[in-house]
Amino acid sequence: MTPKANPGDEFFKAYTAAVHAKDLDAFVSLYDDTVRIFDTWDRWSHDGLVAWRTMALEWFGSRGTDRVVVDVSDVRSSATPDMAHASAFLRFTAVDPAGKPLRSLENRITVVLERRGAAWKVVHEHTSAPVNSEGLKAMLKREPA
Amino acid sequence: MTPKANPGDEFFKAYTAAVHAKDLDAFVSLYDDTVRIFDTWDRWSHDGLVAWRTMALEWFGSRGTDRVVVDVSDVRSSATPDMAHASAFLRFTAVDPAGKPLRSLENRITVVLERRGAAWKVVHEHTSAPVNSEGLKAMLKREPA
Repeated sequence: MTPKANPGDEFFKAYTAAVHAKDLDAFVSLYDDTVRIFDTWDRWSHDGLVAWRTMALEWFGSRGTDRVVVDVSDVRSSATPDMAHASAFLRFTAVDPAGKPLRSLENRITVVLERRGAAWKVVHEHTSAPVNSEGLKAMLKREPA
Repeated sequence: MTPKANPGDEFFKAYTAAVHAKDLDAFVSLYDDTVRIFDTWDRWSHDGLVAWRTMALEWFGSRGTDRVVVDVSDVRSSATPDMAHASAFLRFTAVDPAGKPLRSLENRITVVLERRGAAWKVVHEHTSAPVNSEGLKAMLKREPA
């Protein structure tokens, strides 16, 4: 049985909502206990949900009264009965309490999901920015199409 | 039926051998026609096998008489009947014709594979280096454990 709703699409909806609400429990509930994360920033990996929860706690806590709007584009996904994956580009925009955009950056994201009973959980996530081979700086904005 | 050999492990063996041999056909045969690659270097994505083949042609062609040894570590993978995934750290070491190491760098890799008849093909690959949030430079060496 192929799932009716695409688990990748469902993930992006729930991820976007949890980040905007700074809802730690909703955010953490998307991930499996054994998750391995290759995140864009500063570390080679976060292993397990406790480590990933700590990252989210610091991220949401560091926002003050701002919020983060996540725009998801160019989603590609596929699903089988017990495993699914999705990839996309994310734009993270910090907005002030009045909704005014302050700054933004872009990432690439890959998620791999496995079925756990009725739910789907992310068992692996990989976010990154490409590296400019001249100067080795991260590219944090996509070129206009 | 769960596959006997883990498709992720098989991928890393074949990838390592193809890169060392600079064998373009063997390399390209690991990927699906529709593959989407989020590669470490310079571009946000390579879409489709023609684009990815062009990257490999340039990569292998730029090596001269050197070869690239790929060391794979900390593989984590899972497989279901029709989809599998694996993640790992890769060390790429350029070696001269006498086998002397010249330079090396490290990456993270994620692959998602789908069954195509008897074969498994990579439908999505994501390689990257973490970004140091102070200075926005790519981190191309893992810290000693």
